[in-house]
Amino acid sequence: MDIQDLAKRVIAGERRALARAITLVESGRADHRAQAVELLETTAPEGRQALRIGLSGTPGVGKSTFIEAFGMFLIEKGLKVAVLAVDPSSARSGGSILGDKTRMESLSREKNAFIRPSPSQAQMGGVARRTREAVALCEAAGFDIVLIETVGVGQSETMVAEMSDLFLLLLAPAGGDELQGVKRGIMEIADLILVNKADGPLKETAMRTCADYAGALRLLRKRVYDPEGFPKAQMVSAVTHDGLPEAWETMEELVAWRREHGHWEKRRAAQARHWFEEDLRIGLLSALETSNARARIDALGGQVAAGELSASRAADEMLAFLKLASDS
Amino acid sequence: MDIQDLAKRVIAGERRALARAITLVESGRADHRAQAVELLETTAPEGRQALRIGLSGTPGVGKSTFIEAFGMFLIEKGLKVAVLAVDPSSARSGGSILGDKTRMESLSREKNAFIRPSPSQAQMGGVARRTREAVALCEAAGFDIVLIETVGVGQSETMVAEMSDLFLLLLAPAGGDELQGVKRGIMEIADLILVNKADGPLKETAMRTCADYAGALRLLRKRVYDPEGFPKAQMVSAVTHDGLPEAWETMEELVAWRREHGHWEKRRAAQARHWFEEDLRIGLLSALETSNARARIDALGGQVAAGELSASRAADEMLAFLKLASDS
Repeated sequence: MDIQDLAKRVIAGERRALARAITLVESGRADHRAQAVELLETTAPEGRQALRIGLSGTPGVGKSTFIEAFGMFLIEKGLKVAVLAVDPSSARSGGSILGDKTRMESLSREKNAFIRPSPSQAQMGGVARRTREAVALCEAAGFDIVLIETVGVGQSETMVAEMSDLFLLLLAPAGGDELQGVKRGIMEIADLILVNKADGPLKETAMRTCADYAGALRLLRKRVYDPEGFPKAQMVSAVTHDGLPEAWETMEELVAWRREHGHWEKRRAAQARHWFEEDLRIGLLSALETSNARARIDALGGQVAAGELSASRAADEMLAFLKLASDS
Repeated sequence: MDIQDLAKRVIAGERRALARAITLVESGRADHRAQAVELLETTAPEGRQALRIGLSGTPGVGKSTFIEAFGMFLIEKGLKVAVLAVDPSSARSGGSILGDKTRMESLSREKNAFIRPSPSQAQMGGVARRTREAVALCEAAGFDIVLIETVGVGQSETMVAEMSDLFLLLLAPAGGDELQGVKRGIMEIADLILVNKADGPLKETAMRTCADYAGALRLLRKRVYDPEGFPKAQMVSAVTHDGLPEAWETMEELVAWRREHGHWEKRRAAQARHWFEEDLRIGLLSALETSNARARIDALGGQVAAGELSASRAADEMLAFLKLASDS
């Protein structure tokens, strides 16, 4: 594969080249890995930045419909929109969110949109790296907005927030009791809570839910990278499109404030550093996953389980086997 | 220090020797570490096993009073009781649970009791290893029961459960709303919930609370290592000592069943294996904490934050610097 040519075509904004580039960074093969690194380093100097928007919400909240509506809204404003999905559950189920592009029928037909389902079968560490790299490729391809969608389970939300400039939480209208079901940790990383389905018979419930969340957000500790009144909770309808302009206005206001006050750059720098250290930890721990190492660990683990060797001693033996140069 | 002599005195059950031995395993000094390993390997072949009881409960639930009462109850049965504390918060606050032995006045005066406050200032990984080693030393010293106390925060409960044969959760009488405040994860690791303060004006509330928890426990998935009817919820009063014999009876019943059905040994073997792999991961990651490595990581991290180097490339460079022998 001619990586320099592929890079050129990605930078030119060719969607097929972008799709191929993302497949390359998703590959587990060692030779593909080397090509992926070359590709990323060839496209990076363009220095293009998209607005990276993380989006979470549990199944049933209307995420696909929202992305379809919000994506079309942005495209009508003349923006280029990429949608990536992170689905930690797909590793187990084999299924994937966004797998069915027909759920975003209009958006998937737009030439200024790019939709990429989550790859299945991968570990969390690998998912993070590959998603970051896919985001970088979308930026190099000239997309203005990169929406990173995830489902509200496990640590995927924290991960997506760590690679986003803005984090949206999409929620359904609900009774007061369910408000407590939203984990505090998720509230704390949200920049904007959108209560969806604010239409038809649910509109009143949506208003109450929205007020409840707004109240809950006010109880959270003030974050240094928020202007007065943030994080916010607003209503939106992915069906009638009510609230979409207001939601976008809020996002633009927040982004402008953060850029002006230096938080945008600071956050990106801190995120890059975070991912470097995370990649480093994962890389180091992957030394335990080679077949050589696994065989040795299993043998030692058997001795430990049988009580023939202490856990500490077995760990020391394994570390000696790995011959880390850390003390040099 | 004559480690062989210290080992002999630990095995002879000398409390001062045991205290000194635990101080040794708690030390961060490299030469102490080598001595600690020698000590543990000299005392281990005795093959003595205590019943390891993990105990958790938030501050204010009456943990100290319960340990004092339950400890004295066991001593009156002719058992030798060691109490160890794991306090993840002490690392920050500098304080420590069990720091004040006067909270367990009778127990601390008993010759068949050994009380050890949690060491302050340590990271979770280090706390786990040191606590396991302290447990092993108490077993070598001939204690029949090792109570491992922790506060209900963070991951310390999971950690303590992973080194216990039984896990007790001590709770206060409370309204139905507060039941939901007990994290599901903690319910799932508990073998026995004890509702404390079942005395005086709180007795009726305690009865209701106990019934509520019993109901909640029945909704949990059945665990293979539990006989019919477990996990249980019972009432206890650390003040009047009501319920202590019944609680102990429940523990004995559970232990007998697990021993008979092979779960005792299986669980210990699985725990040993778990700690081996955990020690291994911590040992591997500690390669990042040498001053050499830290300096290099900071330099690379600076370049990454400045956008001069990608996170992946920086991680690769650092891994090359550590020269792992993993691929050989």
